[in-house]
Formats: sequence, C-alpha cells, structure tokens
Amino acid sequence: MIYADNAATTKMSEAAIQAMVSAMSEVYGNPSSLYGIGQKAREALEKARGEIADIIGADPKEIYFTSGGSEADNQALRSAAELGKKSGKMHIVSTAFEHHAILHTLQKLEKEGFEVSYLDVHENGIVLPEEVAAAIREDSCLVTVMYANNEIGTIQPIREIGAICRERGVLFHTDAVQALGHIPVNVEDDNIDMLSSSAHKFHGPKGVGFLYARKGIRLSNLIEGGAQERGKRAGTENVPGILSMAAALKEAVSKMDANAVFLSGIRDRLIDGLLGIPHSALNGDRVKRLPGNVNFCFEGIEGESLLLLLDDKGIQASSGSACTSGSLDPSHVLLAIGRVHDVAHGSLRLSIDEGITEADADYIIRSVSEVVEYLRGFSPIWRDLMAGKKDFILF
Amino acid sequence: MIYADNAATTKMSEAAIQAMVSAMSEVYGNPSSLYGIGQKAREALEKARGEIADIIGADPKEIYFTSGGSEADNQALRSAAELGKKSGKMHIVSTAFEHHAILHTLQKLEKEGFEVSYLDVHENGIVLPEEVAAAIREDSCLVTVMYANNEIGTIQPIREIGAICRERGVLFHTDAVQALGHIPVNVEDDNIDMLSSSAHKFHGPKGVGFLYARKGIRLSNLIEGGAQERGKRAGTENVPGILSMAAALKEAVSKMDANAVFLSGIRDRLIDGLLGIPHSALNGDRVKRLPGNVNFCFEGIEGESLLLLLDDKGIQASSGSACTSGSLDPSHVLLAIGRVHDVAHGSLRLSIDEGITEADADYIIRSVSEVVEYLRGFSPIWRDLMAGKKDFILF
Repeated sequence: MIYADNAATTKMSEAAIQAMVSAMSEVYGNPSSLYGIGQKAREALEKARGEIADIIGADPKEIYFTSGGSEADNQALRSAAELGKKSGKMHIVSTAFEHHAILHTLQKLEKEGFEVSYLDVHENGIVLPEEVAAAIREDSCLVTVMYANNEIGTIQPIREIGAICRERGVLFHTDAVQALGHIPVNVEDDNIDMLSSSAHKFHGPKGVGFLYARKGIRLSNLIEGGAQERGKRAGTENVPGILSMAAALKEAVSKMDANAVFLSGIRDRLIDGLLGIPHSALNGDRVKRLPGNVNFCFEGIEGESLLLLLDDKGIQASSGSACTSGSLDPSHVLLAIGRVHDVAHGSLRLSIDEGITEADADYIIRSVSEVVEYLRGFSPIWRDLMAGKKDFILF
Repeated sequence: MIYADNAATTKMSEAAIQAMVSAMSEVYGNPSSLYGIGQKAREALEKARGEIADIIGADPKEIYFTSGGSEADNQALRSAAELGKKSGKMHIVSTAFEHHAILHTLQKLEKEGFEVSYLDVHENGIVLPEEVAAAIREDSCLVTVMYANNEIGTIQPIREIGAICRERGVLFHTDAVQALGHIPVNVEDDNIDMLSSSAHKFHGPKGVGFLYARKGIRLSNLIEGGAQERGKRAGTENVPGILSMAAALKEAVSKMDANAVFLSGIRDRLIDGLLGIPHSALNGDRVKRLPGNVNFCFEGIEGESLLLLLDDKGIQASSGSACTSGSLDPSHVLLAIGRVHDVAHGSLRLSIDEGITEADADYIIRSVSEVVEYLRGFSPIWRDLMAGKKDFILF
C-alpha cells in the first residue's frame, strides 16, 4: 500500500504516538490544578509550548493551542477583523485559493460589512508580492495569504509579503498548515504576525494545532469560558495531544532538510513520469512547490473514478482537498489557476512522505497511466475530443 | 495517592486508552477521503457517533463532535442567539452558577444587545422549575441550565425545566459536562434540545466532546471551513479522540448504576466525617448531588493552603473549578448559594471516582481535619472569631 495523501492527513510518527501514550497515563492532571500532578501537566504543557515556539522563532507567550488549523484560522481572522472594525478599517487582502477555513470566514466577514480583495494566483499558483502591495489600502486591517497551497503545493513569497505588510502597517496572517514541518518557517525571518498550524499535517495527532500571534496583537476569543491560554482560548488543555504535537514537530523539523532533498527527487520523478501521459498537465509551479506535492490534471477523465481505481491498486491519493470531497464542484484552487471546469474535474493530488521509494513512484506512474487510459476508454468527453468534436485544452 | 479531583479532569480509562492507541496506528485516514482507509475512518467515526447517540437517546445526525465542552457550550448559545436575533427574541434565561463557558458567552451576548435573566439557585444550589417558568418571556429565545453543577455537584430538575421550555416553545440547552457518564441523561426523557459534553470528564481523552442539537435546530458555525460535521463544525475530525470518547462513555454508562451506589456511599461517609469539623458546612443539597461530589466550606481558613497541604498528604483536591484556579476571586458558585466572601474562600471540593476505598475516605477525613486545625492555628480570621471579635457564620 502506498499512502500518497499526506496533505489530507498523515500517519502519526512513532515519536508522536509514544508522547501521546505516555502522556495519557502519566500526565493526566488538569494543568490549571494547584497540586503536584496538575503542576506536572502544566510544566509539560509549557515545555511543549516552548519547543514549538523555538521551532518557529516565536516567544512561548505567542503560542495559543487550538483544536487544529481551522480553529486557528478562524480565530486569527476574527481577531484581525474585530481590531479592524474598532479602527474603522474594514478591508482585507487575501487570495482566491485559500483553504476554506479562510475563505468561508472571509465570506462571513463580507456579510458583516467587510470588503475582501481576492488576489489572483496566476497560472503557476503563486501570488505576486507587488500585487499584494497594490491591493493594500488605507483601510486594510489584514493580509492573509497561505504559506503553501493545500492542493497544488505552491509556496508563496511569504517573506516578501510579510515585509510589505510590516512596512504598510497591516497585520499579516498566514495559514501554514501545509508548510510547517515540511519547509522552513520562521515568524521573525518571514515577517509573520499570525500563523495557523495543525499537528496532523506533520505526523502529529488530529484535533490539535496552534495559533501564533505576535506580542501586542489582541486576540478575540472564539471559545469563551475558563482562563486557559492566557484567557484567549477556553477549555481544558489537550495536554497529551499538545505533547504529541510537539514531539511530531520536533521530529519533522529535524528530518526536514534530508526529507526535502529526498522527496523533491521522488516528486520530480513522479512529475516527469506523469507528464508522459498524453493530454496531462502539472498544476502549479514546478519548482516553488512543497517537496512532497504532485498535482495533475488529465483531460477527459473524472477524478473520483481515478481515485477509486488507484485505491484498488493500493495507492491512496485524492483529487484535491479532503475537506471538500464528495462535493460536485471542481476545486476552487484549480479554477483559480485558470483550469476550466472539465479539466479541473480530472485532477489528481499525490502528497508523499518519506516512506515512499523510487519503486513506489514508478508503480504510481505505471498505475496512473493505466487507469487514465482505461477511464478514457469509457469517457464521452474523451470520445468527443478524439473525434475532433471538442478541442483539447491540455497537450 | 488519592486523586479526588475528577470534576477537574479524570484519568483515562483503560478502554479509552486502548481505543486511542489502536486508532492512532490503524485508523489514520481522513474520514473525508474516498479511498479505503479514509472510508474505514469514516465508518469508525460514524459507529462512535451512533454509540454516543444511543446512550443519550439521540439520533446520530444530532451529534456534532467538538473539541470539548467549552466549544459545545459556545456553539449552542451562539446558535440559539442567532436564531433569536432573526426572530426578534433577544432574551435568555440562565442561572447564576453556570460554568464560565456559559457565563462568559452570555456576558458577550449581553454586550451585543441580549438580555439575560440569571435565576437564583437558592441555598441548596438548585434551580426551581417554577422560577424558570416565571422568567420565560415572549421574547425568550433560550433557556440554558446546567445538568449538574461543576463545583457543588447539585443536580438540577432538568426534565421539569425541559418540559416547561417545550410547552412554552423556547429552546432548552443544558451543559451536561459533569453529568454525562455519571447519572442518567436522556435527551428524549429530559426534553433537552441542545446538550454539551466533554470526554475528559468521564475518563475519556482531553480535547474532544460533542454538542447534541435536536433535528431542526439550525446551528451556527463557530469554526468555518470544510464541510465536516454536516457543515456545522469545520476541521478534520479527531477520529482517535472520538473513538476513545465513545469507548470511555460506553464503559462509564455500563458501570454507572453500580458506581452511583458505591460512590454515594463513600460520598456520604465523607460528608458525615467532614461535618465533624467544627464550623464547617456542606455546600449544595445533600441528596440531589452527583454521587462523587463533596464540597465544603471551613470557616477561618484559606482554600489554597488547604489544597497544598492535602497534596503533601497525597490527596489531590480543589477549591472549586480548575478553570479559575489562580484567581483571587471567590467562587461565583459559592457566592450564588449565599456563602459570604470570607467563607467561600475556605472551600474544598472532593470529586471521587470508583478507585476510592472506605479507608481512603477515612484518611481524607482525618487529613482534612488535621490540616484545617493546623491552618486555623495561623489564621488571623480564626483568631478574631475565637476572640469573639467576629461572629461565626458556620456552626
């Protein structure tokens, strides 16, 4: 079995599992309790906070644990919006291909009177810093651009965008859910004010993540209640989950450079191999993309069938975001980079991790080629294309 | 060591740990993914949902998984408020001693224009159904009353309150975080429209809980994003946590009757023993309280010192809610049942589980008696009381 859907979720690392297992039985106190085992939980929690802060170049007080990336995204945007509203700044700059945790929150804010400029991400799936600069207005309260896209894996010029935001005095948030643990992320170097992350994307547990918010940024609570997380996120802290996340992140970062070299090699092998399929195209920039991400469109086929047949061959992949599978709409990300509906429907995302081998890659290439050919045999669109009744879009 | 702070958090049961451990390695797929291991995760998730629904008398479609009780409370209140606002009903009925996840959300709603009637909970810590009935107005959109109080353990007449709400056509929410798994809770029998719960209060994992919302109630999203949880709660589902929660709840409920008999026996032994300490008093109704809850005030002492000295003797207890420890304010719950500031400061909550023995209970009684006497030896308030410069409040 070749699990190639690590952008949807990863298998927990041994280190993450071990941290969870030992915390479940040994660190069961409530960190808010005064007695020994409560304080032991508090110490473990703060140690994990420090480790995570260190990794991203933050101060531990700037880390707020959440239930995952979506919650962190929601809280970051809500906080910036509330600050903006207070100062009469109700304009936000974002992009057309953000994760739905961002886009749906922005849509809600639009209903509440905010105006959002959605920047073009161009054919290569990369935002241009100068277009961010041009979009910022006097009344902009926030720029939010994802670090790396969850479908096509393109890495954005975060450092440049951050510098522009800093110069213009606008808060800058980045959804780094796909980036952290995979490529270098540093809030200082990258001029980031707020950052969202999720443990299960870097071989940590599901149900836990964090929001980084630079000192001085007044967060609004999404969840009101107890005084946990400096009063900004109520609810008993998920200590085992947080310890497990810290263990996973430490391991991911320690292996990151070596993995990046290895994975981008396999990724490029996959890209070259899949480009051999006629009427196919890589989605997103070939170079500025996550080491483990491959995303293709194949003309004349339907993504869902492709996935099910690959599953039969022991290959788990997706057509895009897992969060929206089952939906009949084509990926908003693929539409954003200019793929037309028909083509966007025939997409395949392979997101690999270090468990993969070159032989696996070759098996994937062979399997995808066979399945695409097989499916085209049944496809009315393909028949029309071959009969010249319809023009090919991909060559 | 005697862990007597189960209302703050519980130690995970073996069943809960095992469910988590096996899910972490075996059910790692994203339930939104189409391929086999994604669908396996989906099936496991829906099985857990069904089991939890069965236990509380709900339909699986009425269960929305959250990151815990606080999130569920926030979402329930926000949803009712949004529905209320749309129909011009901006009045809410609640009580003075709800958990802060409720109270702080209500305070926020008050700032947004809602009016909240906080019902008296009387000396015994129990809301009167007739006072709920009297408080409901034409413009009431919600009644929210906790099932059992987290500090003094008093059980509220939920069924009667639910019947009144149903008759008057007002939504009824209950924070059942302290009740579920400890006493019978059934949304049908109890006429409940929305219910919040948290796994770590019934020997399940931290960071996971659920909101029950009766069919037809349109929930508002607290967390926007993907289409998980019928589009009402975004974020990749915490499958291992949810499976572990279901395992914990099943076990808790299967043992509930036997535990209730055993624990209320120990509880009464503790109460009788602690009443032997001069100038002490039980907080909350003696009979209508959770089987495992004991809450006392001791005149002339300061709760924090009491807890630290008990910890030295191997007894972990609290002065009230863990969520607010560290705060210098006396418990809002104790103030709500009429304890004056001085006395409320000297409180002790023992929340026991089935691991306790009669010998443990006797050791607790002896230890508390000794520590209270010891602390009174240093207490300026106690000196004044003994010198007749101040009147005793507790006898």
